[in-house]
Amino acid sequence: MVTRTELANAIRFLAMDAVEKAKSGHPGAPMGMADIAEVLWRDHLKHNPANPHWADRDRFVLSNGHGSMLIYSLLHLTGYALSIDDLKNFRQLHSKTPGHPEYGYAPGVETTTGPLGQGITNAVGMALAEKMLAAEFNRDGHAVVDHHTWAFLGDGCLMEGISHEACSLAGTWGLGKLVAFWDDNGISIDGDVEGWFTDDTPARFEAYGWQVIRGVDGHDADEIATAIATAKAETARPTLICCRTKIGFGAPNKQGGHDVHGAPLGAAEIAAAREHLKWPHAPFEIPADIYAAWNAREAGAKCEAAWDERFAEYARAYPELAAEFKRRMAGELPARWAEHKAAALARINEAAQTVASRKASQIAIEAFSPLFPEFVGGSADLTGSNLTNWSGSEWIDAEGNGNYISYGVREFGMAAIMNGMTLHGGLRPYGGTFLMFSEYARNALRMAALMKINPIFVFTHDSIGLGEDGPTHQPVEQTATLRYIPNMDTWRPCDTLETAVAWAHAIEQGQRPSNLILSRQNLPFVPRDASQLEAVARGGYVLRDAASPKAVLIATGSEVELALKAQEALASEGVAVRVVSMPSTNVFDRQDKAYQASVLLPGVPRVAIEAGISDFWRKYVGLEGDVVGIDTFGESAPAPLLFKEFGFTVDNVVAKTRAVIA
Amino acid sequence: MVTRTELANAIRFLAMDAVEKAKSGHPGAPMGMADIAEVLWRDHLKHNPANPHWADRDRFVLSNGHGSMLIYSLLHLTGYALSIDDLKNFRQLHSKTPGHPEYGYAPGVETTTGPLGQGITNAVGMALAEKMLAAEFNRDGHAVVDHHTWAFLGDGCLMEGISHEACSLAGTWGLGKLVAFWDDNGISIDGDVEGWFTDDTPARFEAYGWQVIRGVDGHDADEIATAIATAKAETARPTLICCRTKIGFGAPNKQGGHDVHGAPLGAAEIAAAREHLKWPHAPFEIPADIYAAWNAREAGAKCEAAWDERFAEYARAYPELAAEFKRRMAGELPARWAEHKAAALARINEAAQTVASRKASQIAIEAFSPLFPEFVGGSADLTGSNLTNWSGSEWIDAEGNGNYISYGVREFGMAAIMNGMTLHGGLRPYGGTFLMFSEYARNALRMAALMKINPIFVFTHDSIGLGEDGPTHQPVEQTATLRYIPNMDTWRPCDTLETAVAWAHAIEQGQRPSNLILSRQNLPFVPRDASQLEAVARGGYVLRDAASPKAVLIATGSEVELALKAQEALASEGVAVRVVSMPSTNVFDRQDKAYQASVLLPGVPRVAIEAGISDFWRKYVGLEGDVVGIDTFGESAPAPLLFKEFGFTVDNVVAKTRAVIA
Repeated sequence: MVTRTELANAIRFLAMDAVEKAKSGHPGAPMGMADIAEVLWRDHLKHNPANPHWADRDRFVLSNGHGSMLIYSLLHLTGYALSIDDLKNFRQLHSKTPGHPEYGYAPGVETTTGPLGQGITNAVGMALAEKMLAAEFNRDGHAVVDHHTWAFLGDGCLMEGISHEACSLAGTWGLGKLVAFWDDNGISIDGDVEGWFTDDTPARFEAYGWQVIRGVDGHDADEIATAIATAKAETARPTLICCRTKIGFGAPNKQGGHDVHGAPLGAAEIAAAREHLKWPHAPFEIPADIYAAWNAREAGAKCEAAWDERFAEYARAYPELAAEFKRRMAGELPARWAEHKAAALARINEAAQTVASRKASQIAIEAFSPLFPEFVGGSADLTGSNLTNWSGSEWIDAEGNGNYISYGVREFGMAAIMNGMTLHGGLRPYGGTFLMFSEYARNALRMAALMKINPIFVFTHDSIGLGEDGPTHQPVEQTATLRYIPNMDTWRPCDTLETAVAWAHAIEQGQRPSNLILSRQNLPFVPRDASQLEAVARGGYVLRDAASPKAVLIATGSEVELALKAQEALASEGVAVRVVSMPSTNVFDRQDKAYQASVLLPGVPRVAIEAGISDFWRKYVGLEGDVVGIDTFGESAPAPLLFKEFGFTVDNVVAKTRAVIA
Repeated sequence: MVTRTELANAIRFLAMDAVEKAKSGHPGAPMGMADIAEVLWRDHLKHNPANPHWADRDRFVLSNGHGSMLIYSLLHLTGYALSIDDLKNFRQLHSKTPGHPEYGYAPGVETTTGPLGQGITNAVGMALAEKMLAAEFNRDGHAVVDHHTWAFLGDGCLMEGISHEACSLAGTWGLGKLVAFWDDNGISIDGDVEGWFTDDTPARFEAYGWQVIRGVDGHDADEIATAIATAKAETARPTLICCRTKIGFGAPNKQGGHDVHGAPLGAAEIAAAREHLKWPHAPFEIPADIYAAWNAREAGAKCEAAWDERFAEYARAYPELAAEFKRRMAGELPARWAEHKAAALARINEAAQTVASRKASQIAIEAFSPLFPEFVGGSADLTGSNLTNWSGSEWIDAEGNGNYISYGVREFGMAAIMNGMTLHGGLRPYGGTFLMFSEYARNALRMAALMKINPIFVFTHDSIGLGEDGPTHQPVEQTATLRYIPNMDTWRPCDTLETAVAWAHAIEQGQRPSNLILSRQNLPFVPRDASQLEAVARGGYVLRDAASPKAVLIATGSEVELALKAQEALASEGVAVRVVSMPSTNVFDRQDKAYQASVLLPGVPRVAIEAGISDFWRKYVGLEGDVVGIDTFGESAPAPLLFKEFGFTVDNVVAKTRAVIA
């Protein structure tokens, strides 16, 4: 009979040997947390290795993602489609086992982790999604949504500010099925943490309303098992299990120190560990009895089959709910989406309203949301400013009912929680803050793009046009920098119609997040013909043409109005120019070259107009064109004065246009 | 005799009336915190309104910066050079009283606040600076550095993750002279905070090691006074005073609700408040006796004069220390800087070392630091990776001795603490993390640029060149987006010499922060002639010329080597090209047009090479040139494979160059 320690040692040696072979990586955390993982994964985790997409599986998040060999070992040992060769390919090009766990690479990796603090925050989002879906779909005697979210985290995650945002909300929301294991090993990269991390972490989490289980020996299976049982027994509060561990446990000369954290142990130390832990097996060789004890395929298949039966009963009792649950977990658009969208766009086009584009966004939400019960709106404490709510918004309650979340002043937490909800499936989150504070959330936006998931970020107050709040709140470089995130669509629409198209486009994205950049101030509606209406979704299009244009004016958002006025002024002086509206450069850049040329007219000089950093536009206007932009910080003053102060005037656009033509 | 309440009401009406006149702003916080401010500013704050730069003044930070009329009212009433007309110009263009308190506008504003959580973090930096300078400069009987840092903060600051990072460190560092007042009014923009902010905040701060004074009535001067006395009596721990307040106190119909937070009260409510608070005075009229009771000019002058005397005694006892203290508080470079720098650069040039630029950075730190006792190095738990330490690094101890800080895994906190230390004066912080995690800190970098202060940010592991850690850690768009922050210099040097010049340039900046973007991997040293050595500091220069070049290759950092190899390959095929090294586009963009043209050769086609987003380079290569860049996320693999995978090969550069010439 194999012992628990031997089972845990299998993880330790896979981690040591894979890091050694890759010549880089982090053996310390997998070795330190192996015993915890053994108890959790063998005795508690509800999963089916043959189907990593099973809707009611438990979610497991390795927030300390540098310890990736821990999860790779677990997935391999329990029988996921992750072979020993995959482990041998750790950190190699196009392998399933990159340096940090990447969503979409190894089956069973629920989220990409590595940037510290975001994994536990994703986990909070997953646990919230479970609670909300349970509230929405479960019926008496039919608990089709009923699973736990487990997170491993280290000192680094706990030091990061985002852990405060996420864990505070987890407490407020009473996420009773969220259980986090703190790898309390006293070590971070700079050494012993006592010089820079002296929080009473258990007291901190109690202050958030968590159940905290103190002083668990992270190398004692019985203590771990008891703690997990206590965690599962608590249904109204999330649980933090504080596990004292030795980093690099089993490396006799290096364990407990920071040298073991992020570098191969070296052949000598690994040999010593083999001796010390009595593990005579060669690298990447796991004895059959140990494989057998780890294998979870049979138990997993049974577990899922039982759920399948329960779901079938549920489907008989509630066929519509069951169908809806399946659609939502599959991430499919509602069947009537195309017609609903067309009707909504037609209605918005007819209404021809002049409103702020943040208001236009609310109009679009109002138009589309009735079709999307999976929408979960929210804001980082700026609902009335972001206008992210609609007539059907219901704030979530203690039981998880509702479809709208006030995240509080927690932009980064909001974005990473939205990522977690999206990864869980069944919900489609969108959330708002001021565009400036996209900066607080920035790495979570990038993570959404990297993971190819599709949350929608609503960023209002998009330029000096917000006026009196001044330069701390006035975006200058933010729109340009968001456009630079790969695999992400940034939209800056000019009126109600473009805003609605942007929303629809964002909704339709399956593997890409979107940013909607919106004005505080009113923007005039621009009438369009049928082909222009079609073209908005291409990201850039001819909004007002002229015969034989001498120049092309390219504008976005609030500056489209200025471009149109400049066009008129130039026309009155006998100078014909075309106006191109470019609500999404990212989408326009994906159009075919012929279409792009038909819009931009190669050879005709161009002037771009946007209340943002001008250099961005050189990719469209070249060295010969010009840009009416803003390359300094803004000022505090009423918006109309600011636009004048910074050169967003018809006269200036006319002068620059004349200059590029000459 | 005027009452304390009347004195506080002066603040309330200035706030109400200024917001009303500006037609925008936030009256709620100034009205709610007026009583606290009255006790603190009239009875405890050590300051001299006639000299807002007095070195030993207390620092006051309004972390809830939207309540700007609170500090403007205080500065006006106590006698700073901020007139009643300045208050009437609240939120108007080029006034001293912008919507949020901006450093450098109104005298007495110690830092720019508004982006929540950063003010309290700046305050932590200021308090740390005080402690470190006291440890360094004070001598028995000569406490020339001995002042408090006071911060006001609201629920929003406490929800933000950065408050966790900063307040945790403040506890660890034992900042006994830091006192924060929590405006516990139960309201944030989305309404009553109980739906999204249920932390036991006092318990949370006790978990950080703070003294917490609970349950103070924020409208009772005696309770406030007692709490402040208790705070001052504690010297080993920072103090949080929890003040229950009513937001918008004094507006009889709106107080206590969120409508009073961020909008004018309206004429009717202000009239009702005048009635309710028995304040018969017209807007912006303050009775003489109230002005007299507030005026702190005489007391302040006495206070500073007493310190001047003490400092004179100190100067007699320790003339060198006193001179050094004055130099450092004035932010002056050491007298021998120019010669020291020249010698160091010459030494580094001669050594001609091939090392990673992060190592080159450490060499530069080692070369320059002996001249700069004001340097305070640090890292967000990546010292061994960032190489931000040097042979003279001494980790700070409990008494504040030392010159190096392990900030823990707290990038945003680190950057905003560095801003606070810089604002305090007397210290020159630099701090490191991976370039990717500049994103966690991003808004603090922007705040440094906005405030025109000069911390130095060291960002290593700057591209796919970091290899196996994979796309979560591989910057793609980060360097480009940092270059877009106004008033900030971003450097990406190619070898030891450029790295040292970048460091020297960053050191010399008085009103501008700098980012140093550095490689993980080795970069070959490039020999230069004397004029090239001079030219590095211009941000871009001709590194290897050719007769009648057919193209200009522009490269930065690790890609300079590739450009030079491509030049050779092209030369062997009879194609002459020039290689331009462009370590700082920001600095190059500030050179005169003639110099720029002499480097870039208008009319000659250009190819830019950088392992980052390619669109950025269109501003130099135009539409006709080309870019060897990377516009997707990276991958996990050994670096040499990645450079090949993503097209950073001589063949690819040669092909693209031939194409633009053709």
